[in-house]
Amino acid sequence: MLKLRRIGVDTYRENVAYLSRDCPLYRAEKFQGLAKIEVSKNGRSILAVLNIVDDLQLLPRDELGLSEQAFHQLGLPEGETVTVAQAAPPASRDAIRAKVLGRVLSAEEYEAIIRDIAANRYSKMEIAAFLIASASFLTTDEVLSLTRAMAAVGNRLTWPDRPIVDKHCIGGIPGNRTSMIVVPIVAAHGVTIPKTSSRAITSPAGTADTMEALARVDVDPDEMRDIVSRTRGCIVWGGRANLSPADDVLISVERPLGIDTREQMVASILSKKLAAGSTHLIVDIPVGPSSKIRSHLEAARLRKLFEFVGDQTGLTLEVQITDGRQPVGYGVGPVLEARDVMRVLENSPSAPADLRQRALLLAGRILEFDPRLRGGRGHERARELLDTGAAARAMSRIVEAQGPSPESYALGTRTRDLSADRDGVVESVDCYRIARIARLAGAPADKGAGIDLFKKVGDPVQKGEPLYRVHAAHPTDFRFATEMAASDSGYRVAAAA
Amino acid sequence: MLKLRRIGVDTYRENVAYLSRDCPLYRAEKFQGLAKIEVSKNGRSILAVLNIVDDLQLLPRDELGLSEQAFHQLGLPEGETVTVAQAAPPASRDAIRAKVLGRVLSAEEYEAIIRDIAANRYSKMEIAAFLIASASFLTTDEVLSLTRAMAAVGNRLTWPDRPIVDKHCIGGIPGNRTSMIVVPIVAAHGVTIPKTSSRAITSPAGTADTMEALARVDVDPDEMRDIVSRTRGCIVWGGRANLSPADDVLISVERPLGIDTREQMVASILSKKLAAGSTHLIVDIPVGPSSKIRSHLEAARLRKLFEFVGDQTGLTLEVQITDGRQPVGYGVGPVLEARDVMRVLENSPSAPADLRQRALLLAGRILEFDPRLRGGRGHERARELLDTGAAARAMSRIVEAQGPSPESYALGTRTRDLSADRDGVVESVDCYRIARIARLAGAPADKGAGIDLFKKVGDPVQKGEPLYRVHAAHPTDFRFATEMAASDSGYRVAAAA
Repeated sequence: MLKLRRIGVDTYRENVAYLSRDCPLYRAEKFQGLAKIEVSKNGRSILAVLNIVDDLQLLPRDELGLSEQAFHQLGLPEGETVTVAQAAPPASRDAIRAKVLGRVLSAEEYEAIIRDIAANRYSKMEIAAFLIASASFLTTDEVLSLTRAMAAVGNRLTWPDRPIVDKHCIGGIPGNRTSMIVVPIVAAHGVTIPKTSSRAITSPAGTADTMEALARVDVDPDEMRDIVSRTRGCIVWGGRANLSPADDVLISVERPLGIDTREQMVASILSKKLAAGSTHLIVDIPVGPSSKIRSHLEAARLRKLFEFVGDQTGLTLEVQITDGRQPVGYGVGPVLEARDVMRVLENSPSAPADLRQRALLLAGRILEFDPRLRGGRGHERARELLDTGAAARAMSRIVEAQGPSPESYALGTRTRDLSADRDGVVESVDCYRIARIARLAGAPADKGAGIDLFKKVGDPVQKGEPLYRVHAAHPTDFRFATEMAASDSGYRVAAAA
Repeated sequence: MLKLRRIGVDTYRENVAYLSRDCPLYRAEKFQGLAKIEVSKNGRSILAVLNIVDDLQLLPRDELGLSEQAFHQLGLPEGETVTVAQAAPPASRDAIRAKVLGRVLSAEEYEAIIRDIAANRYSKMEIAAFLIASASFLTTDEVLSLTRAMAAVGNRLTWPDRPIVDKHCIGGIPGNRTSMIVVPIVAAHGVTIPKTSSRAITSPAGTADTMEALARVDVDPDEMRDIVSRTRGCIVWGGRANLSPADDVLISVERPLGIDTREQMVASILSKKLAAGSTHLIVDIPVGPSSKIRSHLEAARLRKLFEFVGDQTGLTLEVQITDGRQPVGYGVGPVLEARDVMRVLENSPSAPADLRQRALLLAGRILEFDPRLRGGRGHERARELLDTGAAARAMSRIVEAQGPSPESYALGTRTRDLSADRDGVVESVDCYRIARIARLAGAPADKGAGIDLFKKVGDPVQKGEPLYRVHAAHPTDFRFATEMAASDSGYRVAAAA
């Protein structure tokens, strides 16, 4: 028996076990090159990828180390004795192999796969194999099975009333922070909209990151229910609710691999909405040359897939295709985006018109789920709630109910302006490039980092006039971001006609 | 700048970097969820997967840790200062994405992919993505490109004379240790046969493991050339020669995933043979219900692919399809297999006839590469060299030239006999099951562990008569192996007609 030791290493959603090469009980090399090992004690067990330790100061010979996630999953105290064996393949292994060979899988097979993924029984390379095999071919019924399986494996939120409305944007457009305007408008109308959002993984800000510049977002489901019972709405980080743990694992592989198929996207989004207890959903699909979806044909296909899975799972779902040709609003990065949101809610003259219009469009469609507003009256009602300050007051109640953010955040003080190199008109702004520069500047980890846009598509500019300002907190980030911006600003300026 | 620290962890062919969550210079979480980071110093750099460290005793805040392989690859001393950045995707990343989308890749694209794999620029999940995408479709030209790219990226052995002959078995049959008989027969005839072999990864013994029971096999290319100049042959571990470093990385992902496509197999085997300087090759493809290749149709397809790539790369290649319905010889595990080999070479009455016959068949075909023996005279010559003791003497010279093994190995002393549960005739022996039990018993890590078969297919048995004996050194291994053997011995005994 080996003594259990916690190894303070975060292996990012993969279980890793550490065993000394000189372990007197097990020949560590015997396990190397195999899929995984099983670490057990009295019927409790976890699977983990093995790392062999050659340094006795890191791990004594007679101990078995577990990375943070694996240690917590096993749930035993340090010093407990455990045994180690070659892991038997997870129950769903044959189904994954069948998918690799191109077979269409059943609902039961997806349930088994998703259960094993959520229980961290697969290594990242095994998950990559499943994702790549799925990326090459999934039937619509498989997307449905995958969605249901993913929704079933996590927590499910329940709400005392109906409808429970929600909105979701498939992402890719910097500054597109409509949720933070839509939620207070809808809540002000008296409809329940408990919004759970993600933090950014590869973008400069997620809604949760931006809301955190204004209020606490790390809220558990009980608190969330309490907040919503008082205010009709919330804007919180979804991570605490553990709505789709399998999706969290899948994302940890999809992102580094850059896999972003329609099928995975629909299953990922709708599984979380189902688990969150939503009954009505608007999906925003921005289309543009540097957006995730580049053509209207692609958008139409994605829309049909959303509608199919929505219908089959009993979700009232509508898709709104929007203009995704440039960033929305002026700010990119949490603090700057929160500023834009508040300007819209406060009807400030400096509020970005495009952000306001998009938020009203989406809020209007949600309000039309209310039978009294059917037939196009939703948009008018949304504008009324915004213009009268009812939405701003709803936002204040939500911010107050969620409580203050644990830290306060200020705009990054290292700044540099990027200027036009000719006279003309802004022809295009590359969403991907702008996101990349804002991220290099430190967003979202540094909430005050990012980009403040001064010009949008169609605006006339003069040579030397600033196009945008880079904000950063740390000198290295500032250097990387400004270097990248200098090499290609992401703006194209055409000579005026 | 961070101080470099070597972390004594073997992450099995994946570069891993360790950074403190509280690092004052870089926000470690900023890098998490991305593909990889780049660790650099004065133009030297490596890519690595990031693990975040939460324990300052494992890694101080201002240090950057590298796993063993990554540390050696960077090639800088501990304490040197390094910088860290988000890694740009490797040059071949677009080619891998194209393969995932189903495109046929060019020779140049395979060269780029294989270069990046060999330089450890991909994580295991990225390699899994490439392998799964390739598994679903590769043209024969792509197999050829892959083979050439893999051969080009490692060392290449050169030899003063020609032909350089070789044999290779695609594996899967326990005890099939013909190489250790073929090499001395061919060397005794005066033809050069510098055999590099692998160690077992998932089987109970590779040829290198078995030869190591008799002689040193950890030999570098210069010594190998010296040995071969004196004896015409050698049987050494190929790992030192670094013949196909990309293949070593691919295997570290293929094995745990259980991917074993014809295309990968051909590219893997032939790239190593080309790099080893072989000019003539016999490939042994055993066919049987529990072998890797289960039908003659499958074997015929594989044969054609071997022949196609062999022809295009200038290798004189012949395929021998053999009976793979049961283990070969009596012993399974390095010490037991070495015993069988020596009995055949010494013409002992207790030598396994099947091992002898297979070795003569393969050696005969190799000898027929000699123009003087064409037309079927190779087999007769092989038998003459074996029967007269010329092969045994060649083996003695090879063993002496390679030198003694660093350790001596004895048969595992914990034994248990597995007995027939009825009277009858042995109908089948499951190769996979026997291999699994022998591995659980400790082979190949414990060279004396394994299984000694007493009965083969067609042999009459009486109830209670032993079918085989399990040998193990360690008590846990002994228990696991005998428990698995008791639950299913791998033998089917049919009532005598």
